[in-house]
Amino acid sequence: MKLYDFTLAPNPRRVRIFAAEKGLNLPNEQVDLTQGKSRTPEFLAINPAGRVPVLQLDDGTYLAESNAIAHYLESLHPEPNLCGRDALERARIEMWERRMELDLFTTALRAFLHLHPMNAQRLKQLKEYGNSQVAAVQTQLEWLDRQLKGKEFIAGPRFTIADITAFVGIEFGVATAGIKVDPALADLTRWHRAVSSRPSAKA
Amino acid sequence: MKLYDFTLAPNPRRVRIFAAEKGLNLPNEQVDLTQGKSRTPEFLAINPAGRVPVLQLDDGTYLAESNAIAHYLESLHPEPNLCGRDALERARIEMWERRMELDLFTTALRAFLHLHPMNAQRLKQLKEYGNSQVAAVQTQLEWLDRQLKGKEFIAGPRFTIADITAFVGIEFGVATAGIKVDPALADLTRWHRAVSSRPSAKA
Repeated sequence: MKLYDFTLAPNPRRVRIFAAEKGLNLPNEQVDLTQGKSRTPEFLAINPAGRVPVLQLDDGTYLAESNAIAHYLESLHPEPNLCGRDALERARIEMWERRMELDLFTTALRAFLHLHPMNAQRLKQLKEYGNSQVAAVQTQLEWLDRQLKGKEFIAGPRFTIADITAFVGIEFGVATAGIKVDPALADLTRWHRAVSSRPSAKA
Repeated sequence: MKLYDFTLAPNPRRVRIFAAEKGLNLPNEQVDLTQGKSRTPEFLAINPAGRVPVLQLDDGTYLAESNAIAHYLESLHPEPNLCGRDALERARIEMWERRMELDLFTTALRAFLHLHPMNAQRLKQLKEYGNSQVAAVQTQLEWLDRQLKGKEFIAGPRFTIADITAFVGIEFGVATAGIKVDPALADLTRWHRAVSSRPSAKA
């Protein structure tokens, strides 16, 4: 297997952290998004959506989209479990993961797209929209702080894929769009510190 | 089981179509989003994210988020299969479903949010941003047309959850944000006609 990756991009990082939690060391090939390398005819034949991550399987099959790759890796390497052990637990974790993806991760990504100078050539940036997305992330972090009361991790008592999505979204927003983890949000800060200190956070 | 639903909203419709394909008739309770009924203290105790759909299980447990509900329903009612029969097929279908959700469904939703008069009180609408999302959906439909060449459905030879997400996103965009299915996109139009004519499309 091989992971088409780009170190600076948040979606591949979700897969890298997921793999690190499983103790997997996936060989990777860097696809430099800043040089348009995910949009070449060669790469579009690998992933017609033109983005990373993509996992190449040993039979040559390509699998794209971070969540699909994560679930597939979990089927091959069930332990430690990150996505749920039975149908109801899987559904609960997916519920939390999707909230993190739609309300936090992709919102932080839109803030980056509309505010960061790196994207000035890529799209027509609308600062007012970008600022609204920063505000939406901060509101979502306050909500998440309340949801974390009395819970060690986002989906419950153990670390799951929902924590990975939230953590990578927050870290990307902090690095690129001025997102802040307010220390006054005590449960969020406690969770953020715990996830940051896991060895996988370096992936 | 009971589905907290709102007929006009696109996310609950994904679950309704999914259930209809399975031959399930879920009792439902309407939560009128236009009257703020998903934001009451009573409803926030059911779903702290304040939205529908929510599936109430027979033991009183609440499960939110359309995809999580769909996967849980599939575990109870495996046939007809809509999400994949083995790990690799599940991953492939999830890849397609996620592309449809992130690039088409949520883009159409943002077009609606920023352009439709119904939302003028709900958020500060940015027409320019809304128009950019309409354009992004149209570009995505051209992409989808190319992806459908030689394929009957989005994830391959049979109808799956990826078709449901794409169809509901398109229908919602057509109804609320001026999205068009251009007849010149022959494969998209062929697929759209086939999915529209399924009995589940009325759900």
